[in-house]
Amino acid sequence: MGKGSKKKIKKVGVPPGTLLYTGDKTVEKINIEYFVYDEKECQVLNYNTSDINKLNAVDNKVVWINIFGLTDVGFIEKIGEKFKIHSLILEDILHTSQRPKMEEGEDYLFMVLKMIGAPNGGKRIEEEQVSLILKEGLVISFQEHIGDVFDIIRDRILSSKGKLRKKGTDYLFYSLLDTMVDNYFLILEEYDNRLEELNTDVLERPKPDLLDNLQKIRNGLNSMKRDLWPLRDAVGKLEKYESAMISNNTKLYIRDLYDHTLQIIDLMEGLRDSLGNIFELYMTSISNKMNEIMKTLTIIATIFIPLTFIAGIYGMNFEYMPELKFKMGYPILIIFMVFIFVGLIAFFRKKKWL
Amino acid sequence: MGKGSKKKIKKVGVPPGTLLYTGDKTVEKINIEYFVYDEKECQVLNYNTSDINKLNAVDNKVVWINIFGLTDVGFIEKIGEKFKIHSLILEDILHTSQRPKMEEGEDYLFMVLKMIGAPNGGKRIEEEQVSLILKEGLVISFQEHIGDVFDIIRDRILSSKGKLRKKGTDYLFYSLLDTMVDNYFLILEEYDNRLEELNTDVLERPKPDLLDNLQKIRNGLNSMKRDLWPLRDAVGKLEKYESAMISNNTKLYIRDLYDHTLQIIDLMEGLRDSLGNIFELYMTSISNKMNEIMKTLTIIATIFIPLTFIAGIYGMNFEYMPELKFKMGYPILIIFMVFIFVGLIAFFRKKKWL
Amino acid sequence: MGKGSKKKIKKVGVPPGTLLYTGDKTVEKINIEYFVYDEKECQVLNYNTSDINKLNAVDNKVVWINIFGLTDVGFIEKIGEKFKIHSLILEDILHTSQRPKMEEGEDYLFMVLKMIGAPNGGKRIEEEQVSLILKEGLVISFQEHIGDVFDIIRDRILSSKGKLRKKGTDYLFYSLLDTMVDNYFLILEEYDNRLEELNTDVLERPKPDLLDNLQKIRNGLNSMKRDLWPLRDAVGKLEKYESAMISNNTKLYIRDLYDHTLQIIDLMEGLRDSLGNIFELYMTSISNKMNEIMKTLTIIATIFIPLTFIAGIYGMNFEYMPELKFKMGYPILIIFMVFIFVGLIAFFRKKKWL
Amino acid sequence: MGKGSKKKIKKVGVPPGTLLYTGDKTVEKINIEYFVYDEKECQVLNYNTSDINKLNAVDNKVVWINIFGLTDVGFIEKIGEKFKIHSLILEDILHTSQRPKMEEGEDYLFMVLKMIGAPNGGKRIEEEQVSLILKEGLVISFQEHIGDVFDIIRDRILSSKGKLRKKGTDYLFYSLLDTMVDNYFLILEEYDNRLEELNTDVLERPKPDLLDNLQKIRNGLNSMKRDLWPLRDAVGKLEKYESAMISNNTKLYIRDLYDHTLQIIDLMEGLRDSLGNIFELYMTSISNKMNEIMKTLTIIATIFIPLTFIAGIYGMNFEYMPELKFKMGYPILIIFMVFIFVGLIAFFRKKKWL
Amino acid sequence: MGKGSKKKIKKVGVPPGTLLYTGDKTVEKINIEYFVYDEKECQVLNYNTSDINKLNAVDNKVVWINIFGLTDVGFIEKIGEKFKIHSLILEDILHTSQRPKMEEGEDYLFMVLKMIGAPNGGKRIEEEQVSLILKEGLVISFQEHIGDVFDIIRDRILSSKGKLRKKGTDYLFYSLLDTMVDNYFLILEEYDNRLEELNTDVLERPKPDLLDNLQKIRNGLNSMKRDLWPLRDAVGKLEKYESAMISNNTKLYIRDLYDHTLQIIDLMEGLRDSLGNIFELYMTSISNKMNEIMKTLTIIATIFIPLTFIAGIYGMNFEYMPELKFKMGYPILIIFMVFIFVGLIAFFRKKKWL
Repeated sequence: MGKGSKKKIKKVGVPPGTLLYTGDKTVEKINIEYFVYDEKECQVLNYNTSDINKLNAVDNKVVWINIFGLTDVGFIEKIGEKFKIHSLILEDILHTSQRPKMEEGEDYLFMVLKMIGAPNGGKRIEEEQVSLILKEGLVISFQEHIGDVFDIIRDRILSSKGKLRKKGTDYLFYSLLDTMVDNYFLILEEYDNRLEELNTDVLERPKPDLLDNLQKIRNGLNSMKRDLWPLRDAVGKLEKYESAMISNNTKLYIRDLYDHTLQIIDLMEGLRDSLGNIFELYMTSISNKMNEIMKTLTIIATIFIPLTFIAGIYGMNFEYMPELKFKMGYPILIIFMVFIFVGLIAFFRKKKWL
Repeated sequence: MGKGSKKKIKKVGVPPGTLLYTGDKTVEKINIEYFVYDEKECQVLNYNTSDINKLNAVDNKVVWINIFGLTDVGFIEKIGEKFKIHSLILEDILHTSQRPKMEEGEDYLFMVLKMIGAPNGGKRIEEEQVSLILKEGLVISFQEHIGDVFDIIRDRILSSKGKLRKKGTDYLFYSLLDTMVDNYFLILEEYDNRLEELNTDVLERPKPDLLDNLQKIRNGLNSMKRDLWPLRDAVGKLEKYESAMISNNTKLYIRDLYDHTLQIIDLMEGLRDSLGNIFELYMTSISNKMNEIMKTLTIIATIFIPLTFIAGIYGMNFEYMPELKFKMGYPILIIFMVFIFVGLIAFFRKKKWL
Repeated sequence: MGKGSKKKIKKVGVPPGTLLYTGDKTVEKINIEYFVYDEKECQVLNYNTSDINKLNAVDNKVVWINIFGLTDVGFIEKIGEKFKIHSLILEDILHTSQRPKMEEGEDYLFMVLKMIGAPNGGKRIEEEQVSLILKEGLVISFQEHIGDVFDIIRDRILSSKGKLRKKGTDYLFYSLLDTMVDNYFLILEEYDNRLEELNTDVLERPKPDLLDNLQKIRNGLNSMKRDLWPLRDAVGKLEKYESAMISNNTKLYIRDLYDHTLQIIDLMEGLRDSLGNIFELYMTSISNKMNEIMKTLTIIATIFIPLTFIAGIYGMNFEYMPELKFKMGYPILIIFMVFIFVGLIAFFRKKKWL
Repeated sequence: MGKGSKKKIKKVGVPPGTLLYTGDKTVEKINIEYFVYDEKECQVLNYNTSDINKLNAVDNKVVWINIFGLTDVGFIEKIGEKFKIHSLILEDILHTSQRPKMEEGEDYLFMVLKMIGAPNGGKRIEEEQVSLILKEGLVISFQEHIGDVFDIIRDRILSSKGKLRKKGTDYLFYSLLDTMVDNYFLILEEYDNRLEELNTDVLERPKPDLLDNLQKIRNGLNSMKRDLWPLRDAVGKLEKYESAMISNNTKLYIRDLYDHTLQIIDLMEGLRDSLGNIFELYMTSISNKMNEIMKTLTIIATIFIPLTFIAGIYGMNFEYMPELKFKMGYPILIIFMVFIFVGLIAFFRKKKWL
Repeated sequence: MGKGSKKKIKKVGVPPGTLLYTGDKTVEKINIEYFVYDEKECQVLNYNTSDINKLNAVDNKVVWINIFGLTDVGFIEKIGEKFKIHSLILEDILHTSQRPKMEEGEDYLFMVLKMIGAPNGGKRIEEEQVSLILKEGLVISFQEHIGDVFDIIRDRILSSKGKLRKKGTDYLFYSLLDTMVDNYFLILEEYDNRLEELNTDVLERPKPDLLDNLQKIRNGLNSMKRDLWPLRDAVGKLEKYESAMISNNTKLYIRDLYDHTLQIIDLMEGLRDSLGNIFELYMTSISNKMNEIMKTLTIIATIFIPLTFIAGIYGMNFEYMPELKFKMGYPILIIFMVFIFVGLIAFFRKKKWL
């Protein structure tokens, strides 16, 4: 939960519009993927920061410039100059705890959101900020690290299957968004599985360490919630946005995307409900166990404390205790004690404690 | 709760508009019911996927094409081509964890919702996605499995009783919706009965296994809630929708349907309240029982622990304990113990613990 | 809580617009009260279902047709035909778990709501559905059973006191609504009294059976809530409704009525808050009592268990226990035990447990 | 909480617009204060109900008619006739559990709200309904009892300090409202102090009687909440109201007043949060204390029960128990017991129970 | 929490528009910083209250008048006269528990908000009210005390780096707001760190004193919440405000600022969620510990109470107890007791209590 505020702090005290990368700086060099395609042909090139002059739009082709790494602020600034992107937008791109949003520039569209994924099929869920710029003839995407969820987009571009190659930049822009949104489903499913496991565990063996897992999922869902509600607004704004850059046909797809974000939010809220239920169940299990423990103690104590008292009576050393002299005293007492024992057992049965 | 996300996952990584059935595939073959009727006559035919060319609208008649099974994606695609349905709509039809919604196509209306039912009068509540297309002269319905809640519609078509045969496609479309919405009442009543039973059980014998039932109903109501709120929006949108396909007279019926969805939501929220109350009641019962257990333990321990101590005193082996020599020592002590016993009982009575 | 769904179920599987009475059928015959009045004179007649032809509007007079009992569906149908009421409206009249609402017909106004009352000054709160039709020159009211809260209206009509006789059908329509709304105040006051009693009881003797009463009131308030929020919307719609049938003067009264419904909702929500507080208080009382019980047990056990141990030591049968031979051994030990006893009492006092 | 419904009940069963005072009737006679002032001079007169003809507007002067006591319904009716106030408004004035609201009459403005105060610097918080009428040239105020919070207004009128004397009726109307709203701050501060005390008390000695105080404040805040939210709406409506009676300059002051009501609501909601926190703190204190009690019991029992058992072993009367014959048997056993004792203490220390 | 109401009280009973400082009065003298700058040059002067005539706008330059201390009401009044600020605005400036808001004056803009900071890098979070006036050619800021968060603004003015020197008053106005808003991030981060510490502490050693810290943070976040929601509205109003004083370019920055306030609110709500989770965790820890304690007690008591009873039996002094005479009686009994002991241990293991 603290991630957002921790990143932001590096920026406090800096004039607005100053470009400063607030993410972590483990990526050494910026890598650039450059796709040019139309329906007939397609080319992929790998560039680095020195190839900035080659990153151009091509007439009648779709260009996708996919930039990995935001550590070289100077390069991002040059990209900004080259494509005439406002410095506040550049600031948002570099400020990696940005709230998802959609902004209209003069001749471009800007969208920033969180890409979520569990890389390498692992269990660790990673979140990364992705910024997209849609301009006449090209889409620019900015990612924090190498590694993303866009492999299926790459496949579709290369294999010329599907509609992607036949359509324009707006459809590419939509496809990138759609892929990222679809990955939320995967993560929610992962959470769903974990919650189901936890639910079983809580019913079978309510141990305190379950709480820790529960809280991890809660934190994950809470941070997802903070990403998804603004994302919904951003996609909604995109849907209503009137621009020559987005065709009416693509609008239909964006409406579909909006439906998907609604569905994700529904799922997420459902998981949050489940989480609350599991927590309640855990608390109830604890209560039930407590009751069982107390019942055991009470039954044992209630049976043996009076019996021990009786034994104590005949353990007293008074000189004149006539019972002690009777030959049948001992067996009669034992029988009496068995009666008490059986009576108390019956009493507990009647009370449904046994 | 996990059902939705589990189904969806099969679709991630597929280009948008690609048709892919995400439900389970137990239905081997697609079956098609074909109804043609007007006020005077009525015909029912059973077709299969090879009869696609016979699925046509008939002048001045109402046609209902009821398709069971969505496993044959190719067939659904052909239906889409034949009736000019947008591929995104077809995708929604096949994507069986679709959020209920209403969409306007070029010359058709699309509505998707969940049909809920407890088939064969059983207790198991089953949910299935139903998609409806209203076009000039025909209604197409898509169901996942054979078996639905439309028998009363079939009866009304065949028996020529009621208004159905006298009215157009819009009324048929409405009737199908209305039947599905009415079934929610049945399911809510089932939940209501179960909750009433649970309420009685909680008051009489608050056992932990009740919690399990409670949670099942809660999950059921939660998933119903996720279906009903979007359904309300969809029906509300339908009510406001202006189209030549829906007559003003049918609009009145749709307004009535909208009222019904409001009523269902009221009932559902009421049941959710009841469920919360029962849970609270359960927790209180547990607390009360705990109190009773502790009270028993405390009374027994508080009475006998001091008495046992006294007996312990006179069980000591000191050589010079004058009381032990007194002839009346033993009976006096017993009387003293009885006094203590009676006094403590009186004390507990005063404290209202007995 | 289950009442609503239980009634509705009888209707599932019936074509929309089919008239079917869903309430209970204990009323044998339908009774009709027929009032005709203007400022100068007033007439009251009792009719039955065969007198349907006499139920007519009278020029320049106000006519109120008050129908008790909805069991004779045929008669309601005839009333519908006679006064040209849409079959969906008739369906709502007969469907006795209708959500409160206001609907505009072609030349009439329809309003349905719940009349609430505690008949015969008793404690049992009864709810009944009342439907009102306002047409040019007449008001028709439909009730489920004989017995209502309209006696004060009858008095005002007969006694020619007040404004009622001087005003038109719109004012009569308003007066009927107003009387029913005012009765909610009475019921809320009854609940308020019960809650105050419960509050006292919880503070004085928090017994589990209080919970049962608490839940009854909660169910009552919850069902009232489900009636009142839609009622507010219905009255609000009536206030905004522009029609020649409702004079501007009466509009002022309807605004006043709207204020009353707001006030009732305020009161109801206040009672619901109180109820929550009482429940919380009960839970706290239980906790406090538990604490007191545990404290008693702990004090007794903590004092006597160590003392019993010491007595046990000197009850051992070792041959060589020098203390046992000392003449002063016994009194010294007793004094030592008294010291321990006093010391522990002081300890508990310091801990504020005594 | 029951006050509202208790008052209202007297009115049920009475035709609407009938004037009936629903407050308590301890005030014997109605008193009237009559202020006439302009910038230059100012006059105050005390009238009673027989002086009704003297209660007139004066050209170019501001007149404030301040009426104490609502028991004489006839007089209120005459006032209504004299100043042409609608009977429904008069009804609201007399109905002393009116929801705060603002209404526009033909040529007057009506505002009703609750005046809150702790008279005589005491701790008892009293609430009273005040109705204000703003008409061309005069302000009429209706109060239930003698004694109000308007002394500072009287001072300003008499002393000719400040703007009041220089401004018109609208400013007087505003000043009366502002004074009443400002008094809410005082009461909230009083509650704030009490809550702070309770907070300290809960931390130091969590006794059950604190709950009683907590609930009193909760009831007070809840009833205040029911007054303040409608008041906010009423002042908001007043701010937006366009009328020749309210100058643009006074509008600025009313906007300021609206800000104040927002601020009061913020404070009130803050106090309600605090109250919830204190309650939670109390529950946690109870839990902590319970834990401490149980810990004490467990430590004592766990140490001495096994030791007592060992002593019990050697208290048995078997003829052949070799240990009993050993000369060192007794001291060895004592040392063994000390070991057990020390070991258990160490165990509890490790578990952080000591 | 009580701060707001405590300050306000000093003002009750004072005519509206009367200037009265409601903050604390520890600042002896008012200090004024006077900045004049354009792109080329920049001047800073320190004035006191006697230099009021020197506080003028300068043609084609940006003037920032930064006033520390509000104790000299007369001076504030003179400032108000000099710059034609409405007395209600001046009242808001002096009333130091003002709700954040934005108001439009005739030819100026007024904005009041809370500046939050942890001065001297310390842990104590301090809040202070800051009022800003934007007029043609100058910005006036009013602070309660010396010491603020504007050092970075001063640096930027003096160093001529960045855009500040090149832009107008609107950008300065924005920069001051932005700096204050950015400081909320710092404070939230501080809270975040504290919560993380508390989280660890709760998991490791759930001591009651943690609750105290938790409540302090809760109070801090609650008061921040009361500041931030109105701040969001104020900034939103500023963004929508059309005025010649604010250039379109600056509008972009204000939109960015609005985004920041949204982000702060997101963070704050996230922290509030975390806080609730930690509290829940604490309650669960307490419950778990209680369970562990009870389990220990129950195990010890359940094992030794029956054994002690058996020892008690053979401690009785009956003359005829044959077992006591058997030579093997004692060892057999000891073995029997070991069996019981082992059996109970096994029982507890099976129940997973050990």
